[in-house]
Amino acid sequence: MRGYAISKDDYQKRLRRIEGQVRGLQRMIDEETYCVDVLTQISSVTKALQAVALGLLDEHVRHCVTHAEGRDGAEDPDHMINEAMQAFERLLRT
Amino acid sequence: MRGYAISKDDYQKRLRRIEGQVRGLQRMIDEETYCVDVLTQISSVTKALQAVALGLLDEHVRHCVTHAEGRDGAEDPDHMINEAMQAFERLLRT
Amino acid sequence: MRGYAISKDDYQKRLRRIEGQVRGLQRMIDEETYCVDVLTQISSVTKALQAVALGLLDEHVRHCVTHAEGRDGAEDPDHMINEAMQAFERLLRT
Amino acid sequence: MRGYAISKDDYQKRLRRIEGQVRGLQRMIDEETYCVDVLTQISSVTKALQAVALGLLDEHVRHCVTHAEGRDGAEDPDHMINEAMQAFERLLRT
Repeated sequence: MRGYAISKDDYQKRLRRIEGQVRGLQRMIDEETYCVDVLTQISSVTKALQAVALGLLDEHVRHCVTHAEGRDGAEDPDHMINEAMQAFERLLRT
Repeated sequence: MRGYAISKDDYQKRLRRIEGQVRGLQRMIDEETYCVDVLTQISSVTKALQAVALGLLDEHVRHCVTHAEGRDGAEDPDHMINEAMQAFERLLRT
Repeated sequence: MRGYAISKDDYQKRLRRIEGQVRGLQRMIDEETYCVDVLTQISSVTKALQAVALGLLDEHVRHCVTHAEGRDGAEDPDHMINEAMQAFERLLRT
Repeated sequence: MRGYAISKDDYQKRLRRIEGQVRGLQRMIDEETYCVDVLTQISSVTKALQAVALGLLDEHVRHCVTHAEGRDGAEDPDHMINEAMQAFERLLRT
């Protein structure tokens, strides 16, 4: 799927924040922060990444549905749903 | 717990790689990469973060055990294990 | 969505096997089996439950797509996808 | 580890409830319940299983610590912690 352009800025903002959080983790390790606090921060970064993933999946599935209506032949919704379900499963198994 | 100094460099290396992967995600969004490929990359970043978390938890639990032997009174292993279990639960629920 | 009848037997077979695994867990606890082996068995039951969940989600999403083509007004694919995404998020957060 | 006898009844009660929930899932499939409701129920069973797993892990880790103090040579806490961490990881990856 192309064209998640509408919320592209939103994704970029989230990813820049996540990048900052990962740099924060480096500082925490550098300063030998109590490891339980580092783990809490890792949970929070993971949650932020999953929110990005859920946003992308949501758009993908909606795109499959919209596209199915059109049937313009450019893309195969069945194939796209297979890929979405495999992506689902990978996220679930991570 | 303090003193995961032994593998501090290893954690830093992993976190710098994760930071690079997050910047890679920004590029992917910028170039409107097919979203299933973005999701695969997000799974891989999440897995890398969890590996860091598991390393920290492992050290923490081992520290509790070592410390329990000493019983020098500086730290309470019971309390530390409570915190470790809560951290693990947070990771599991993420 | 109604009508996952095609693989209803398959779901029932899987769920009966899961029920048997849960009874197996009761026996393991009863016989005071080494807890790491109990944990391994719990992972395996959880994986089996997730496979059922992924199967249901897959059918649901496909149904949304098929239905979108028809647009017979009986169901709202947008609403159904919202529910599917929420269900997926709950699975991911479990 | 042996001897989670103290809360054995509690584990059995939880597992019998989980067994009942799995039979409930069979009924839901049989009655062609709306799949999103089945997914919600699967999340709830998974959560209940994880609560059992976290209880067992907690006892195991505490046992390692208690045993480390004794050093009576019957069990190797290092080996037990290795196993606990592997069980952690399996749960996390499920």
